[in-house]
Amino acid sequence: MSEHIGTLPNSHLAADTICAIATAPGGALGLIRVSGLHALAATSAIFRPNAQAGRQAPPLTERRPYSQTLGLIVDGEETVDEVLVSVFKAPHSYTGEDSTEISCHGSDYILQRVMRLLLAQGCRQARPGEFTQRAFLNGRMDLSQAEAVADLIASSSQAGHRLAMQQMRGGFSQELGKLREKLLSLVSLLELELDFSDHEDLEFADRHELRALAQEIERLIGGLADSFRLGNALKNGIPVAIVGETNAGKSTLLNALLHEDRAIVSDIPGTTRDSIEDTVNLQGVDFRFIDTAGLRHTDDRIERLGIDRSLSKIDQASIVLWLLDATRSKEQIEALSAQILPRCTDKTLILLYNKADLRPQPDPQASEFTEIPDGFPANTRVLAISAKKQWQIDRLEQMLIDTVRLPEISQSEIIVTNLRHFEALDHGRTAIRRVLQGLDDGLSGDFIAQDLRECLYYLGLITGDITTDEVLGQIFSKFCIGK
Amino acid sequence: MSEHIGTLPNSHLAADTICAIATAPGGALGLIRVSGLHALAATSAIFRPNAQAGRQAPPLTERRPYSQTLGLIVDGEETVDEVLVSVFKAPHSYTGEDSTEISCHGSDYILQRVMRLLLAQGCRQARPGEFTQRAFLNGRMDLSQAEAVADLIASSSQAGHRLAMQQMRGGFSQELGKLREKLLSLVSLLELELDFSDHEDLEFADRHELRALAQEIERLIGGLADSFRLGNALKNGIPVAIVGETNAGKSTLLNALLHEDRAIVSDIPGTTRDSIEDTVNLQGVDFRFIDTAGLRHTDDRIERLGIDRSLSKIDQASIVLWLLDATRSKEQIEALSAQILPRCTDKTLILLYNKADLRPQPDPQASEFTEIPDGFPANTRVLAISAKKQWQIDRLEQMLIDTVRLPEISQSEIIVTNLRHFEALDHGRTAIRRVLQGLDDGLSGDFIAQDLRECLYYLGLITGDITTDEVLGQIFSKFCIGK
Repeated sequence: MSEHIGTLPNSHLAADTICAIATAPGGALGLIRVSGLHALAATSAIFRPNAQAGRQAPPLTERRPYSQTLGLIVDGEETVDEVLVSVFKAPHSYTGEDSTEISCHGSDYILQRVMRLLLAQGCRQARPGEFTQRAFLNGRMDLSQAEAVADLIASSSQAGHRLAMQQMRGGFSQELGKLREKLLSLVSLLELELDFSDHEDLEFADRHELRALAQEIERLIGGLADSFRLGNALKNGIPVAIVGETNAGKSTLLNALLHEDRAIVSDIPGTTRDSIEDTVNLQGVDFRFIDTAGLRHTDDRIERLGIDRSLSKIDQASIVLWLLDATRSKEQIEALSAQILPRCTDKTLILLYNKADLRPQPDPQASEFTEIPDGFPANTRVLAISAKKQWQIDRLEQMLIDTVRLPEISQSEIIVTNLRHFEALDHGRTAIRRVLQGLDDGLSGDFIAQDLRECLYYLGLITGDITTDEVLGQIFSKFCIGK
Repeated sequence: MSEHIGTLPNSHLAADTICAIATAPGGALGLIRVSGLHALAATSAIFRPNAQAGRQAPPLTERRPYSQTLGLIVDGEETVDEVLVSVFKAPHSYTGEDSTEISCHGSDYILQRVMRLLLAQGCRQARPGEFTQRAFLNGRMDLSQAEAVADLIASSSQAGHRLAMQQMRGGFSQELGKLREKLLSLVSLLELELDFSDHEDLEFADRHELRALAQEIERLIGGLADSFRLGNALKNGIPVAIVGETNAGKSTLLNALLHEDRAIVSDIPGTTRDSIEDTVNLQGVDFRFIDTAGLRHTDDRIERLGIDRSLSKIDQASIVLWLLDATRSKEQIEALSAQILPRCTDKTLILLYNKADLRPQPDPQASEFTEIPDGFPANTRVLAISAKKQWQIDRLEQMLIDTVRLPEISQSEIIVTNLRHFEALDHGRTAIRRVLQGLDDGLSGDFIAQDLRECLYYLGLITGDITTDEVLGQIFSKFCIGK
């Protein structure tokens, strides 16, 4: 039941053979991928296999699939590189087309020359994501799986990786498949009625049974849609706002958390921290720290406006760390509660008594460091730390992790991470709710069937059973070249 | 006749299995290489091959060499990635050992996790160049070929690539092999004499014949050593000094030359120019432009010292471009000839009349633009250009290319590009010259044989027939990891 609105999937693709460098510049090895009807012929034309046991090697086109052949890439009489060529034959390849992979020495100069030779053989430079797009159009994976390939490559945390892997392996697709089946059985029951629409008031489908089924579908779609909040946070990092007075120790705290992390990543060369500034990975989950300017109590109206603007960043967070100076926490709470607390109702608020070690005889179990102060919401947690001395930082780490309800990221539970999917699910939920309303209102079967079809349509958008060139273009343009 | 001073080559290597990420971070695909006695077992332990045609796939250890297997990298029950694993078996692999290559999705997170899994299986992170070092120690290539692998990866110009490729393919090694044979036949002739040393004045070896052979060897070694000047320039870029007054148009000229080049490289995405600042690639050869401060005639002693220091940079160049403002070239030549010309005796001097288009009725064939001015050396060439209007820039390009004597970079002629090789050749030349001197002086055979052995020793250093751990360490530490 695949429907593509636009150019027919294979007609324009089969015509040309694409090639791309699939590795980043600068490594020891570089890989070039070729895919399409002429992939083997084009590669063969620039490749001279090494003789084997004194005999001339068979041409690439006669090599068995999933085999590798040593030889030379040649440009006329000149040797461009010694390479290893892999051969894949349709439909048993990533793209579902005939394909080759050329493993070259990792020199940009060489890779560019091999690309030029392939272009001269009539291949075309692949667009971003075009190999995966072909895999989708040739039925090797559905659209949500194809999207997961890009997420997988971009994943930088255990949680993000696990969600992308599950989606790529088809977990989400299976869940959607079950939903579609349920919806289709509902539709067919209703359409059977419509075939007998001359007989008024005839209802094959038991309305109670229909309602129960529709309710279950609504619950399942709703569960998937609601998982997006967590999924998005896990994929892009849980947003955490740190608020507190300027000198409360925010950057010391960040460094303390980064330090924990650094021990995990630094044992293998090649890991860099530069690009994930202010994102801290704790036990496989990324926490993204949101900057808020230092706060202080003020009666100046203009100054308060500035502080409000600063505090509005709390709205982006799902966790708020309120950093207090333990030596003068009472004043700080008094001064800022009215501005901070109203913003934290639907969030986890962690009250941190920093510099607690500076108090005479610091005891983390003391009631002042464990009890929720008066007027604070129930979702408040309290902890005494010393960011400078790394005291109780491990406790804070565990507190942050606990807020994520990690059991939800099991390998089996489906969590939606993609905004496009969430939006389709949200539309699907609206449609199935109309079905329920229609059943309550005693609407006739054809109206209800129409809403069910609409729900099916939205689920089909996710897997790509229904798609347009424009949607495909948007999705795959975000991929890297060579994938 | 391989001699390794230090630890025995294979004893410490065979014991451990090495692994490394062989691709740069950030691509669509990432490759991990594993090599050593336990490469197959270690890879097998973390790999679950996909079922084929419903049947369980055979383990990696039973797969045929040069085959690829689809499957999962697993960490306990968790799927780390869907991968393609290549299997190679000793001695038919790059290193000569059992090896695997794991082709992963190009996510740093995934690559690091696969590396950790391999380390947990007892593999060790490979040192830079260690795969190639093993290839050398296992006799898969000699040392000069191994060094060429690094040059090949680093090559950024056609000339550099061609020289590295020739060296890697064994062209230089063959040449050295022939030299060694000639030297050995000389030595054996002399040593036959020594066996009969009781019989004084007995000379089996005809001294004329010996002399002719030694002379030929000296000519061959000398030719190789002398080729280093060109080889080094081709590998690292031909050094070109641009001299002239500040406003003569140096940067406009560089841009004009770069512009020619840019048209060549910009048709394939991924080519960047950023890193080769002031290096211009013309017809496959890199020209490296050396900055000299703007000059002007002055009688001030201090100022002249500064200009002299600036002019001393000419000494690094093999080509000097003297950029003149055509509208006032006579004064400029008069002002600076005394300082510039003495420095150009062993170089190609190109006199450029820039802004020649500003002259009334500019004619590039006019004698003022073609004749070598009085007092200039014979190696002077003359050209009228306009850097701004890109006028005659193609002529200049051809003039630069012509100075390189490109025919010398044919695929067959050996050109030495490596300083270590040059130094060994230079020592070898000294030794063979002592042989010639000894023959002239009528020295006895054992002295002459000793010098011949020394010459052999130096040639052996190049190919690695004679080597030390220290030398190997120096050579391979310059490689990238994963090669």
